[in-house]
Amino acid sequence: MNNIVNEINQRLKTILNDYPKSKVKEAMLYSLQAGGKRIRPFIVLQVIRAYNQNYHDYIDIACALEMIHTYSLIHDDLPGMDNDDLRRGKPTCHKQFGEATAILAGDGLLNEAVNIIIKTSLASDLKIALISCLYQASGISGMIYGQELDIENENKKLSIDKLNTIHHYKTGKLLSCAFQLGGLIASPQDVKVLKEIGYKVGLAFQIQDDILDVISDSKTLGKPVGSDASNHKETYTTLIGVEASQKEVDKLFKEAIKLVYSLSINHGLIIEIIELLWKRVS
Amino acid sequence: MNNIVNEINQRLKTILNDYPKSKVKEAMLYSLQAGGKRIRPFIVLQVIRAYNQNYHDYIDIACALEMIHTYSLIHDDLPGMDNDDLRRGKPTCHKQFGEATAILAGDGLLNEAVNIIIKTSLASDLKIALISCLYQASGISGMIYGQELDIENENKKLSIDKLNTIHHYKTGKLLSCAFQLGGLIASPQDVKVLKEIGYKVGLAFQIQDDILDVISDSKTLGKPVGSDASNHKETYTTLIGVEASQKEVDKLFKEAIKLVYSLSINHGLIIEIIELLWKRVS
Repeated sequence: MNNIVNEINQRLKTILNDYPKSKVKEAMLYSLQAGGKRIRPFIVLQVIRAYNQNYHDYIDIACALEMIHTYSLIHDDLPGMDNDDLRRGKPTCHKQFGEATAILAGDGLLNEAVNIIIKTSLASDLKIALISCLYQASGISGMIYGQELDIENENKKLSIDKLNTIHHYKTGKLLSCAFQLGGLIASPQDVKVLKEIGYKVGLAFQIQDDILDVISDSKTLGKPVGSDASNHKETYTTLIGVEASQKEVDKLFKEAIKLVYSLSINHGLIIEIIELLWKRVS
Repeated sequence: MNNIVNEINQRLKTILNDYPKSKVKEAMLYSLQAGGKRIRPFIVLQVIRAYNQNYHDYIDIACALEMIHTYSLIHDDLPGMDNDDLRRGKPTCHKQFGEATAILAGDGLLNEAVNIIIKTSLASDLKIALISCLYQASGISGMIYGQELDIENENKKLSIDKLNTIHHYKTGKLLSCAFQLGGLIASPQDVKVLKEIGYKVGLAFQIQDDILDVISDSKTLGKPVGSDASNHKETYTTLIGVEASQKEVDKLFKEAIKLVYSLSINHGLIIEIIELLWKRVS
């Protein structure tokens, strides 16, 4: 994984450096370089590799996805949203650059992700398919809808079904999109199965976040633990407890692995992603 | 103009109504319907008409541009930016729906504009050209950069050159994009001239804004007059006075008209836009 993540990090830096100097650009680069694990872009490229295809021509697609993910974190952290001071152990974008620049930096990442895809030398039809997949996953029928649901349901008693819906939109859509982007590039006929794998992995990932917010420490997590409780957010652990939540995580990852084996690919590369996430402590 | 604007308004409403029900969608629709003059989308369609082409297939492109314009207003009005309570005589989006939903509504409009273009039945190459033009104009080498410059230069003594630069990016880029989108659809070889017309009209338009902020009344303008002064913003009128500013407006519109006559088109339709803007009082 490390080599690919290094390539993604290097490319993100180069992409940003190609823009004219500005404070917004600095803020975008700051948040992009604030220690993200690059799970989503890694998935895109790893799926391509699982089809024995060369991933190097598609690094910019993976970077565009990471830009969208980073924009969502910047805006989520704003005083008008979750009002967080720390993200991955560092001051959040608005703490470092001021609120106005942080709003614009988020806008900038959401805006430029599409330009990065357009500037690749891929065929126009493929570009359109990739942009459509990404911006539907991130839009108001996807991640943004999830963010809205999340806000609307603070301080409310939730059912597991409702919580699943919030997680599906807020986290699952974009994480599943990573699998789908890889599929659109390497094997369009498998996109449906890859999408389903992505939803299972995405939900497991989010339940893990709920668990880590309870059992981890702030140093490992890079942000205060117990923030869900202090934000009066209902989570998997408040609804069914840590142990049952972990069982749900295990079940989802196992279901995802079963789907992986239904595809004619180099399974080990996708299993590597799942195991990496399964074992994560932050 | 009225018929076309009605068609744009109707189509914007239909586009939004096609999305699933959510508070973000309501907020997006609220801001889209808060009485904008639709100058930018009207320009796109009027340029197409000036080449004797049918504009009906391209209404969604015009709508996408208006969505981007509206997102920029929603985010500009936020407490973390200009902190405005009124826009076009109505409560701003965050006053009406709360800050979190307003942030997301802006994000939603920026995000969905590209999906609207993608969903049209135009050729992929044309879609790519239109998306590229729009998102470069709105991005960190365009409008967002202008918004950042605007913030950075509050309370600072400015030269006319610096002010022109701010106006060029903050207003000119997107207004010129309207002319360019029409050109890309109807006559790609004329895009360079149309772009130049757009920059001249855009700068004239912004200087008019500076003038109206001094000489108009808040009822006509739909927002408090004198807001530039109270925000400690240097403008054309503070730098060279109302009369010299108006002369600059007249000069720019005349130069734009000269460029219009250099093109082999139905000139009257573009002159109609310019005269409409020249005479505007709000």
